[in-house]
Amino acid sequence: MASATRFLHINEPLPFKRGGILSSYSLAYETWGELNTDASNAVLILTGLSPSAHAASGPVDPSPGWWEPMVGPGKPIDSDHFYIICLNSLGSCKGSTGPASNNPATGRAFRLDFPELSIEDIAAAAHELVRHLGINQLCTMVGPSMGGMSALAYLQQNPQGARHFLTISSAPDSEPFSIAFRSLQRELIVTDPAFNGGTYDDVNWPVKGMRMARKLGMLSYRSAAEWRTRFGRREQDYFSTELFGMNYEVESYLEAAARRFVHSFDPCCYLYLSRSMDWFNLVDGYVDLAAALAGIALASANVIAVETDILFPAHQQQAIADALAGNGVRTHFTELASLKGHDAFLVDYEFFIPIVEGYFKQIREEDLPARS
Amino acid sequence: MASATRFLHINEPLPFKRGGILSSYSLAYETWGELNTDASNAVLILTGLSPSAHAASGPVDPSPGWWEPMVGPGKPIDSDHFYIICLNSLGSCKGSTGPASNNPATGRAFRLDFPELSIEDIAAAAHELVRHLGINQLCTMVGPSMGGMSALAYLQQNPQGARHFLTISSAPDSEPFSIAFRSLQRELIVTDPAFNGGTYDDVNWPVKGMRMARKLGMLSYRSAAEWRTRFGRREQDYFSTELFGMNYEVESYLEAAARRFVHSFDPCCYLYLSRSMDWFNLVDGYVDLAAALAGIALASANVIAVETDILFPAHQQQAIADALAGNGVRTHFTELASLKGHDAFLVDYEFFIPIVEGYFKQIREEDLPARS
Repeated sequence: MASATRFLHINEPLPFKRGGILSSYSLAYETWGELNTDASNAVLILTGLSPSAHAASGPVDPSPGWWEPMVGPGKPIDSDHFYIICLNSLGSCKGSTGPASNNPATGRAFRLDFPELSIEDIAAAAHELVRHLGINQLCTMVGPSMGGMSALAYLQQNPQGARHFLTISSAPDSEPFSIAFRSLQRELIVTDPAFNGGTYDDVNWPVKGMRMARKLGMLSYRSAAEWRTRFGRREQDYFSTELFGMNYEVESYLEAAARRFVHSFDPCCYLYLSRSMDWFNLVDGYVDLAAALAGIALASANVIAVETDILFPAHQQQAIADALAGNGVRTHFTELASLKGHDAFLVDYEFFIPIVEGYFKQIREEDLPARS
Repeated sequence: MASATRFLHINEPLPFKRGGILSSYSLAYETWGELNTDASNAVLILTGLSPSAHAASGPVDPSPGWWEPMVGPGKPIDSDHFYIICLNSLGSCKGSTGPASNNPATGRAFRLDFPELSIEDIAAAAHELVRHLGINQLCTMVGPSMGGMSALAYLQQNPQGARHFLTISSAPDSEPFSIAFRSLQRELIVTDPAFNGGTYDDVNWPVKGMRMARKLGMLSYRSAAEWRTRFGRREQDYFSTELFGMNYEVESYLEAAARRFVHSFDPCCYLYLSRSMDWFNLVDGYVDLAAALAGIALASANVIAVETDILFPAHQQQAIADALAGNGVRTHFTELASLKGHDAFLVDYEFFIPIVEGYFKQIREEDLPARS
């Protein structure tokens, strides 16, 4: 199957927030729809930790994307009206330059030689992409999960960067409970003997570390309420009980999810992206969140929270919405009663589609006619 | 320092719920106060996973116990009026027979040869202790956390077993979210190469497995709300950052807690007790919880839940209270706004003392005068 992913190769240095520099780098992205003549209909989607740029199917690559029901012609983020860009984050292993990429200085993968990555670096790279695409100002910035952090950093760096902003299950900083979850995941990976200081290869792969990190991740991505109704106390017979567990369906669900994940993501990329979220604090250097967001020239914002999200809890979304509204941005805030926790935006479309569809319809009616 | 722990050695076989049998076994317990002449003032405390029988200080052992502010003369569970017994659970490593105990058949520790332990076995052993102490009926059964499960099983096995019942942060069964947490903890221990099929020794100890299991446990014992106020985003400088983490105080808090735990509990005992909670389902064989509790001849019950408990969530306490009340037991239910999560009963005494004190005062006034 053909890939619709395009690559922007940038031969200018990218200095990182915490020091270190990339002398050149690549950004992997996909697009849907057409950029209008005054480049005023661009929507940029920044992603969570693991997704690629393939948010949805298209003519070149008809395979379903990670946000298939949301992006495309006639869909909530409608490519009949908007030019939609989805960027694979800097630091990822899905096409953009990251720790798994070749280090031109050594001819080998960067691994732990990759500069310390911050959310702000992901945002800066995203802005380079937008600039190279000839877009002066985004119509709408979209950021779920880690992508919302990157989007907030982008807007802080570029106060005129977008006219509208949709953020879902994100946060202006990481709270200690989320840090604890991610810190344990990283520790599980780096203490796997096969990680071996980042020198793993296809044969010696930190399978156990990645498997356990993913299982732990699932505890933070979903919710007790979902699992209560989905699994209850049903027993399982898929896997052996050799691990002094695996009696219940919830255990085999985690095991299956973990096995799927182990080889689908590079361990070092996971570590770098995970740590960048812990470090993120939009308020750093400001008196409060409103001050950190002051000057961001948005015409509107739409902030969506999920009641059962324990990783990016709803009150963090509320804080973003309150700060934007306090700064005079017309802001719509919704706390959804979905049981699907942090992952809700990836699985509970019945909750999200009406809001996202309504928001982009409003943008289409109010914003686009005035321009193209 | 002298130990106040007493041992009951029982030379009768104890058949286990899931098969297997102990030909003889020991139970470690401590007591406070005096049993009255008609043995009507006994209070039995069954513990959570890790505590010993040393709930509180006393004349023989003045060292503080795990529930020091709660048990003793003039305290909420008042040894001036009650004969208080705290039992170390069967299966533990704090004096009662468990997987770390000597297997008389082999002369070595049981380890994985210990019969599969259920909560119901812990309850059956507890009843043997009560019987050997010459107590026909407990005045009050007390069960926090896993101890509440054991207490429920005890009352199901002995419907006339107690006149009053205090349960805190417990559950009539394990929900999948709690199972998932414990299953991962067990997997971390048994997949530590040093666990080696249960053949670890003092030199080859599953340090990493126990350390990571404890860190994961802390995520389930406390709450995001507590850590938000307690740690926020404060940075740490106690431990090195070699583990691709350990930048924040919450991380060093977890590391310190984990290091304290590693050698304080036997890995096999941990595995057996942990699994017994997953297996527990009081409703098994009954149409519902009310039916499972029907016939239990309590004069009163006091059920305490903590709003931020994610391991034994408040709605499970509510279910116990509703079922007891529906069966005609005079039941008092409280959901506490403590931020301390599942561990609240061990640390947030200001919330618990008034309720426990009031309940035992009521028992003293209404129940004891009619008897001794």
